[in-house]
Amino acid sequence: MKKALEGLKVVDLTSALNGPFCTMILADYGANVIKIEPVNGDQCREWGPIDKNSGESGFFCYVNRNKKGTTLNLKSGKGKAMFYELVKDADILVENYKGGVTKRLGIDYESVKRVNPSIIYASGSGFGQYGPMSHRACYDIVAQAMGGMINITGFKETNPVKVGPSIADHVAGIYLTVGLLMALYNREKTGQGQLIDVSMIDTIFSLLENALVNYTVGGFIPERNGNIDPSIAPFDVYECKDGFAAIGVGNDRLFEKFCNAIGHTELLKDSRYKTNDLRCKNYIPDLQNIIREWSKDYTKKELEDMMESAGIPCGPVLNIKEAIEHPHIQAREMMVNCEHPTAGNQYFQGCVMKLSETPGTIDTPAPLLGQHNAEVFGLSEEELKQLKQEGVI
Amino acid sequence: MKKALEGLKVVDLTSALNGPFCTMILADYGANVIKIEPVNGDQCREWGPIDKNSGESGFFCYVNRNKKGTTLNLKSGKGKAMFYELVKDADILVENYKGGVTKRLGIDYESVKRVNPSIIYASGSGFGQYGPMSHRACYDIVAQAMGGMINITGFKETNPVKVGPSIADHVAGIYLTVGLLMALYNREKTGQGQLIDVSMIDTIFSLLENALVNYTVGGFIPERNGNIDPSIAPFDVYECKDGFAAIGVGNDRLFEKFCNAIGHTELLKDSRYKTNDLRCKNYIPDLQNIIREWSKDYTKKELEDMMESAGIPCGPVLNIKEAIEHPHIQAREMMVNCEHPTAGNQYFQGCVMKLSETPGTIDTPAPLLGQHNAEVFGLSEEELKQLKQEGVI
Repeated sequence: MKKALEGLKVVDLTSALNGPFCTMILADYGANVIKIEPVNGDQCREWGPIDKNSGESGFFCYVNRNKKGTTLNLKSGKGKAMFYELVKDADILVENYKGGVTKRLGIDYESVKRVNPSIIYASGSGFGQYGPMSHRACYDIVAQAMGGMINITGFKETNPVKVGPSIADHVAGIYLTVGLLMALYNREKTGQGQLIDVSMIDTIFSLLENALVNYTVGGFIPERNGNIDPSIAPFDVYECKDGFAAIGVGNDRLFEKFCNAIGHTELLKDSRYKTNDLRCKNYIPDLQNIIREWSKDYTKKELEDMMESAGIPCGPVLNIKEAIEHPHIQAREMMVNCEHPTAGNQYFQGCVMKLSETPGTIDTPAPLLGQHNAEVFGLSEEELKQLKQEGVI
Repeated sequence: MKKALEGLKVVDLTSALNGPFCTMILADYGANVIKIEPVNGDQCREWGPIDKNSGESGFFCYVNRNKKGTTLNLKSGKGKAMFYELVKDADILVENYKGGVTKRLGIDYESVKRVNPSIIYASGSGFGQYGPMSHRACYDIVAQAMGGMINITGFKETNPVKVGPSIADHVAGIYLTVGLLMALYNREKTGQGQLIDVSMIDTIFSLLENALVNYTVGGFIPERNGNIDPSIAPFDVYECKDGFAAIGVGNDRLFEKFCNAIGHTELLKDSRYKTNDLRCKNYIPDLQNIIREWSKDYTKKELEDMMESAGIPCGPVLNIKEAIEHPHIQAREMMVNCEHPTAGNQYFQGCVMKLSETPGTIDTPAPLLGQHNAEVFGLSEEELKQLKQEGVI
């Protein structure tokens, strides 16, 4: 076995982002992921940026690599029959329709279980499969808002702001992967299949960290703190000559090193900064301003080097280009190349989890629309043509 | 089998956040997680908010529920021997020391593998187990900075800002869980153990979404967009009477409904807003201002109700208290109670992944320091006392 999930058959009904991110992980690590798209394709095939020559979406190709591609009209009787044929011996089904849609289509867990009792049926959605709002449509920004994330992101003096990328979609997809892998382990022991339900709202809510216990135990409603950690100081993002850098001075020992490194040893004698608790209380405005005055004369790189010598956690705020090209990201194969039949060479994120014996790899590009219809459904060219004419595939 | 991971023995060497979040998930779903702390305890036992009566940390108790608690001085010969005895028949070991530390302690994968070749050894860290910076200390803010997240979070006109909660720590912990569960499935098939390596930098980098392909395919370096999505409009967070609400109008059909709902049907005749592409180009300033003028006369709840009637994704920006008390969060058991022997009733986040047959549950509170030493190591009261005196446990 070269890959961890080799031999697993996954029927993939997902579109857009949270579901496809889950099945991307499964495919990267060896599962046989068969993506089923509506006959006009996953909406995400239209998402920019589009490769000018081939018309392929960069995002679609990234998140659907390593998968096989088929099309099915699940509203047609024939399409549904073909779906049920496919799902009969599948190990896993993943879907991310809005709550209630699989039932209307007749492909919900209860229905699929009838033909395949041991299937693991993984559902990702905005609000989940139950609860008063489970029928509602959701965007990432709505999950970030209602899950409590937006209210505690941003500066005190400006409006709340969402996390730049769609973390509700992404992290819900990762949680969905955890859920189905747990169910898979359980099935190895018991033979039992089951339904996994992960929502984007719950996902965001689970990431609130100390903010939550600050309310339940501490009794206050946490506010936005910008780049500051209320329990560590100095801990901030500082502007420098060519951008910004994050620095965290976690304890008294490091604070001494820090003062020496920035040439402000007088701070060590200042009673306002004697302990971390005192520094937290007195960080704004004086201590923050002293560090801001100091940092603006250096480049990101100079700050990083000084802090590294002093053993203090520090990192430059990298833009996308800088992050992609960073030697550490490169050394960890976090950018990979993939040859696409029409778009040519593609360059996107690699595999996060480094498994020493069964590593994830990118072996095949995202499928063209319906590329594997013949192979997956076992169809002759004639049958393929016929089914296309009937609007089934 | 009532829980998915029943019967799995996990030796848990983690502290602070990213590792403990991984083993919390394992424990919630039934694994027998044996936490090993240094004799003076996990640093996280000191993290506020602290329960006034018992002195227990709310955060520690949340993230260490369902685990057994032991202490070991891994620098002592006896302590290390006891560790090796414990690890001999363990299924999984999880650790989140800084890169290089386990080697110095003589408890790295190569060493542990010698006594337990089939163990799955899961390492979470800031920079990972290899790469030019793997030896460096890391905070969540450093991972957010170098992974590319901070640069694209916040408003264009203000400084970049980190995501409020520690998402690098959390999501790295979830990825680590995915990695070890994949390895576990593989071991069921092959008997093979292996090392899993997940870094916080890689984790953040994997969440950059379209920002990354916008550079590799689109050729431009993405900037901060505040609450706006450059490819959908209107899509924003709007201020209202009592706070903010997120609204996303995903297509032309919804835009028509939206204009009717807000009583601005004249926008439907405005050539600047005819298609989503045009709305994206012309959203700022006029369209944005019209919606801002409209939203400020309503409460969050009124906005939400209006949008729900129109079928448009919308959600209030909830603060922590509002999120905790929200009927949907409550209905999905995302807040649970747990009785702690000294701190009394605790109230914190529940389980994200809803498994229909083997759900996660919170059964036991976080352990007191060394609470399960006698049980786990099979020690008499006399032996316990002796080892304590020697500084071994």
